[in-house]
Amino acid sequence: MTPRVKEILSWYGADNPGTLTNLARLLNHGRLAGTGKLVILPVDQGFEHGPARSFAPNPPAYNPHYHFELAIGAGCNAYAAPLGFLEAGARDFAGEIPLILKTNDNDVLREEKDPNQALTASVQDALRLGCCAVGFTIYPGSAHQLEMYGQLRAYAEEAKRNGLAVVIWSYPRGSGLSKEGESGIDVVGYAVQIAAQLGAHIIKVKLPTAHIEQDAARKVFDERHIPIATAAERVRHIVDCAFAGRRIVIFSGGAAVFDDDKLLDEIRSIEAGGGFGSIIGRNSFQRLKEEALRMLGAVMDIYARSPGRDGTH
Amino acid sequence: MTPRVKEILSWYGADNPGTLTNLARLLNHGRLAGTGKLVILPVDQGFEHGPARSFAPNPPAYNPHYHFELAIGAGCNAYAAPLGFLEAGARDFAGEIPLILKTNDNDVLREEKDPNQALTASVQDALRLGCCAVGFTIYPGSAHQLEMYGQLRAYAEEAKRNGLAVVIWSYPRGSGLSKEGESGIDVVGYAVQIAAQLGAHIIKVKLPTAHIEQDAARKVFDERHIPIATAAERVRHIVDCAFAGRRIVIFSGGAAVFDDDKLLDEIRSIEAGGGFGSIIGRNSFQRLKEEALRMLGAVMDIYARSPGRDGTH
Amino acid sequence: MTPRVKEILSWYGADNPGTLTNLARLLNHGRLAGTGKLVILPVDQGFEHGPARSFAPNPPAYNPHYHFELAIGAGCNAYAAPLGFLEAGARDFAGEIPLILKTNDNDVLREEKDPNQALTASVQDALRLGCCAVGFTIYPGSAHQLEMYGQLRAYAEEAKRNGLAVVIWSYPRGSGLSKEGESGIDVVGYAVQIAAQLGAHIIKVKLPTAHIEQDAARKVFDERHIPIATAAERVRHIVDCAFAGRRIVIFSGGAAVFDDDKLLDEIRSIEAGGGFGSIIGRNSFQRLKEEALRMLGAVMDIYARSPGRDGTH
Amino acid sequence: MTPRVKEILSWYGADNPGTLTNLARLLNHGRLAGTGKLVILPVDQGFEHGPARSFAPNPPAYNPHYHFELAIGAGCNAYAAPLGFLEAGARDFAGEIPLILKTNDNDVLREEKDPNQALTASVQDALRLGCCAVGFTIYPGSAHQLEMYGQLRAYAEEAKRNGLAVVIWSYPRGSGLSKEGESGIDVVGYAVQIAAQLGAHIIKVKLPTAHIEQDAARKVFDERHIPIATAAERVRHIVDCAFAGRRIVIFSGGAAVFDDDKLLDEIRSIEAGGGFGSIIGRNSFQRLKEEALRMLGAVMDIYARSPGRDGTH
Amino acid sequence: MTPRVKEILSWYGADNPGTLTNLARLLNHGRLAGTGKLVILPVDQGFEHGPARSFAPNPPAYNPHYHFELAIGAGCNAYAAPLGFLEAGARDFAGEIPLILKTNDNDVLREEKDPNQALTASVQDALRLGCCAVGFTIYPGSAHQLEMYGQLRAYAEEAKRNGLAVVIWSYPRGSGLSKEGESGIDVVGYAVQIAAQLGAHIIKVKLPTAHIEQDAARKVFDERHIPIATAAERVRHIVDCAFAGRRIVIFSGGAAVFDDDKLLDEIRSIEAGGGFGSIIGRNSFQRLKEEALRMLGAVMDIYARSPGRDGTH
Repeated sequence: MTPRVKEILSWYGADNPGTLTNLARLLNHGRLAGTGKLVILPVDQGFEHGPARSFAPNPPAYNPHYHFELAIGAGCNAYAAPLGFLEAGARDFAGEIPLILKTNDNDVLREEKDPNQALTASVQDALRLGCCAVGFTIYPGSAHQLEMYGQLRAYAEEAKRNGLAVVIWSYPRGSGLSKEGESGIDVVGYAVQIAAQLGAHIIKVKLPTAHIEQDAARKVFDERHIPIATAAERVRHIVDCAFAGRRIVIFSGGAAVFDDDKLLDEIRSIEAGGGFGSIIGRNSFQRLKEEALRMLGAVMDIYARSPGRDGTH
Repeated sequence: MTPRVKEILSWYGADNPGTLTNLARLLNHGRLAGTGKLVILPVDQGFEHGPARSFAPNPPAYNPHYHFELAIGAGCNAYAAPLGFLEAGARDFAGEIPLILKTNDNDVLREEKDPNQALTASVQDALRLGCCAVGFTIYPGSAHQLEMYGQLRAYAEEAKRNGLAVVIWSYPRGSGLSKEGESGIDVVGYAVQIAAQLGAHIIKVKLPTAHIEQDAARKVFDERHIPIATAAERVRHIVDCAFAGRRIVIFSGGAAVFDDDKLLDEIRSIEAGGGFGSIIGRNSFQRLKEEALRMLGAVMDIYARSPGRDGTH
Repeated sequence: MTPRVKEILSWYGADNPGTLTNLARLLNHGRLAGTGKLVILPVDQGFEHGPARSFAPNPPAYNPHYHFELAIGAGCNAYAAPLGFLEAGARDFAGEIPLILKTNDNDVLREEKDPNQALTASVQDALRLGCCAVGFTIYPGSAHQLEMYGQLRAYAEEAKRNGLAVVIWSYPRGSGLSKEGESGIDVVGYAVQIAAQLGAHIIKVKLPTAHIEQDAARKVFDERHIPIATAAERVRHIVDCAFAGRRIVIFSGGAAVFDDDKLLDEIRSIEAGGGFGSIIGRNSFQRLKEEALRMLGAVMDIYARSPGRDGTH
Repeated sequence: MTPRVKEILSWYGADNPGTLTNLARLLNHGRLAGTGKLVILPVDQGFEHGPARSFAPNPPAYNPHYHFELAIGAGCNAYAAPLGFLEAGARDFAGEIPLILKTNDNDVLREEKDPNQALTASVQDALRLGCCAVGFTIYPGSAHQLEMYGQLRAYAEEAKRNGLAVVIWSYPRGSGLSKEGESGIDVVGYAVQIAAQLGAHIIKVKLPTAHIEQDAARKVFDERHIPIATAAERVRHIVDCAFAGRRIVIFSGGAAVFDDDKLLDEIRSIEAGGGFGSIIGRNSFQRLKEEALRMLGAVMDIYARSPGRDGTH
Repeated sequence: MTPRVKEILSWYGADNPGTLTNLARLLNHGRLAGTGKLVILPVDQGFEHGPARSFAPNPPAYNPHYHFELAIGAGCNAYAAPLGFLEAGARDFAGEIPLILKTNDNDVLREEKDPNQALTASVQDALRLGCCAVGFTIYPGSAHQLEMYGQLRAYAEEAKRNGLAVVIWSYPRGSGLSKEGESGIDVVGYAVQIAAQLGAHIIKVKLPTAHIEQDAARKVFDERHIPIATAAERVRHIVDCAFAGRRIVIFSGGAAVFDDDKLLDEIRSIEAGGGFGSIIGRNSFQRLKEEALRMLGAVMDIYARSPGRDGTH
């Protein structure tokens, strides 16, 4: 156990040893083991966007085993997916990689201006599949947000009681937000705070822009001169919003980009801002496996060089 | 146990021996026993369309015993029906044919642009009636889809814990889809993926058309040149969407046709595309029993000759 | 135990001996004991229509004991009523007549175009009051129909597990149906089928008219020349819709009529069509008791002479 | 135990000895003990109308102890109040007066044309506070009526199983009724019947007017010449609607009046019509305690002289 | 145990010794221990208003440990916060300060004219974190008020059974109230009464204005000459509405003010009116810690000099 992992675990004093053990499994697996940094492979796009859009760019990815192998081969800290994908490989790859069961999902067969998610798996499912954490998506800003917070509350309580960790995908969305607002720095910071207050161990958000959505927030950003000009500064603000860095916050890359330089620049910004890592889906599995392994290796190189951060002001 | 059935069972590594046993019962019963192919008789049309429309074309079919006898006589792998129809024969035909209890249903006394289903039977009902699986219908694309996914989740968890298999009828419908879209190749492929991610062991969809409903999907079908011109190609895509063939996907024939050549052509396409079989209701029980047995025999002839498929890319 | 009752019980092979015993109690009580025919006294009109409209025509009927005495005196097979009316006499008349507890009810203080019912009693209430069955009303065609089917499902499962029988009042109603449609032959036949598929032991419907509501159904009635010109023919079709006569279906008379010849003509049609009996409320308790006993006696005379029906095609 | 109380208890043959004991406690406490008549002090106006409107006319009434003392001092049969008021004195006055816990309430911070109530206390609360009954308000005629009936059903079942009595406040209200209709004789009679059918031991309604709201009811009142000209006649009809007097029905006085002659005239009408007593809130606690005691004494004088009524036709 | 604390505990005769013990912990901690007065630090603004708006004015406040240290350093009676903030320090500061777990929360990512809150923590969470009370917000006047009262009811029952105290944040809001009405004296008094009737041990409201919102209330305030001209008089009325002072009612200060004289004037008014104390969030943690300690010290000076109040009329 490295001092950095020991330090991170010390922030979760309310959790039982079972949950700490599972957090430690996540932090101590793969190429970034012990660094306090995380790179996770998430594959829920088959559900969220449809199978052809997700897997036709790299047809072996239709097969659920592919993603286990990719995550293991790349040395990721964990692999996160919905129930069906995990059921299809949990026995075959048992013990080879920490698993995160996504417990709610939605599809794009309907578009709702105030989106919601269906409960698609349970905490008990996570336990029987040998997962170390449950994943749960919330949409702060949606008309369904309070219902989602309440569902998450129950899942988180049951997960913690059973020694699992809780990973929250916190995605601002809904009729109260503009399209730019969904990734605005104030809104993403707020989404991180909400997830942390709801009891998340790990929070996953999108890399924010410098857009500020809410007037009341803009007033504060201006008056207090909160630096948000560069991506690294925005990451640093997001980390502040995660209990001054006492909650693990990781960033998603969004749609597949074909300019790896741009992708790696983002990773450098996350690292520079004190972010804890990345969750990289479409940029991983929508390219040939060799290319994916090379790209993920480059990402991990950046995080592996990070000196860490003490997490307090 | 044939190698092919052993192979199929190996895809369900997350299931307990009870569920595997029931899957094996389905795969090892009737004329297609051991081939990995399935022909199932479903009779829920009394509920879904009304009794006169369903049974007046062949009045003996008003009697619930008729369908047990038809399924047994034809050598089907299983008989699927709502609670009442199974209760009316489960003791009389105990052990003679695997049963699938449909646990939700709707009627056409009202038409809703966003349809839903009522829970009409429970997992406990399936157990007390000696069934090997529960059946559950979802309507991806309906405004009620998230509620249905959540209900299914709970049923599937209870079924699997009790050693039952889960069969999902995945029928895209609702205000977000055009009429053609309900059977479009992208939408049906998406419906299969959703059912698989929700934990289905067996997925039942309609034979898709070459229509593409969603712009984002069309872009991928075009760019990646996914072949969908023939029915067999479309079946092959659907099988890909079912975890690259690692989930059993079967096809329904739709309304009664009186041109058996057309029907058998469809079966040949399903077989050629690597589909796992058919679920044939109205084309079975709405004709004289002798004709039905002859037709089902011809269908099974096609599947029985199929060399199987390894199910992976 | 008469051969006819034994035969009827044989249709319910999915039920435990407790439920069969209670079905036998219903079939073997009163003047029609052993005939396989049933005449039941239902008194839920105090709730459904109001006390003055229900009981002022015959003021002794305000008293709950009156109805127990009427049902016993007339030799009915059972007495059916809401919680309050049964609680008010269950001890006083314990063991003197089989009781059916109506477990949901509505009033006419509001008119809704899509009616619903409140749960007003439980299966446990039925057990503590010594009832042999629970009664449950559904409104096929109402926007609330799926909710009602789901509630019924839970009640029926609990009732059967506890050895009670399930009686469904299946009344088509709601914004999707015309006024004539509510008693149209296609719609009533559909309502019977739905109740049977939901697991009813006994189904209660209104005597249907020759009206056909749904175009898709009319097509079948025409093509197949289903005879529906006379009331007896319509009853026969309804019995077919009840699993080819393998579920007990009884008929209500509707509003009080003062022409007993007309009423008895209806009974003759039910008998001629193979119906299993009648449920007669307002025509019983809204007249002087002596007149009611005479009328019910005449009704039972008709059913008592019935040779029975084998119930299969 | 007086013969009259014994007779009243005999009407509740479905209840366990625990509930009968609590009913007996209500009937055998205070100045009207043993007469079969009841005068109850209800104080839910702090919740239902607000504290200033309720208690400023007599400021000592802000203190919850005041009402215990008033009910005890006046010799009431019971004191009824929401959770907070009972919690604030249940230990201090333990055993000095039977308590009825109101388990649902609403406020007037919003006006709804279809009112509802919140569940504000549980049956378990009633047990831990030593109450002899739970009180529950329903609004027959409101769009929320079916939900309220269903909640009441569950509360009543739990209360009876635990040996408590059930008191229903049955107040017709909602968009389907005119303002006059809420206290019309047909509607109040219907409200009493509904409460009785839902299993009430004691029903509380407003003193009805001669207004008739529903056409179908008016037809019966006219044809059957039901006498409703005087308040006493209307009370008699209401008692008929309460299972021909086999359920205890008591009357509320409404807003505070400052003409005690008018108030006592109402009491005389209730007594003359065979009503079982009164529930008097604002007319009690919104005046000086001495005046309240004198007024309540005068009310009890009237009931104490009542010869009783046999309760059957 | 001081006589004053003994007296206060005597008002809660319905509570078990566990709850009394926790109330005593609140009253006997910090600088105001034993006085019967309370100053509580609440920090839910990260959730309710967003992290930048809440913590950027004093960046150390991003760190959850900061607030524990502030509350301990200032000698507050308790620290109240949502789940995440308490989980982040409960072990580190175990036993150093009584904790109140806020169990429901909302954010401002959407504005609703009828606000609601999500359940964000459970009573079990409060127990495992070592809290002495649960906090719950209600919005009297919102279209969601009945739902909130019902949720609170269940939480309060479970909390009391487990020996915890219940603190209600009672904030009038919603489409039925004008903006001024939310803090009008009649509405705030009503909100206090509702919270007390719902079983609160401690009630937190805003300092009311002299505005009167409801006509029916204005009539009473005028007729009865209820004094509400000064803040102290209004506090006294609020204390009356809290069961004549037999429930603890404390006041919030609202938005940060930079005029401490104004703030301390408010405190003097609360003290003069018989209020039990203050809950001071933004005015505490949005300034430098030293300034916060000085300000909180000045506030406590005022309450510490208060002679107490006997709480009855």
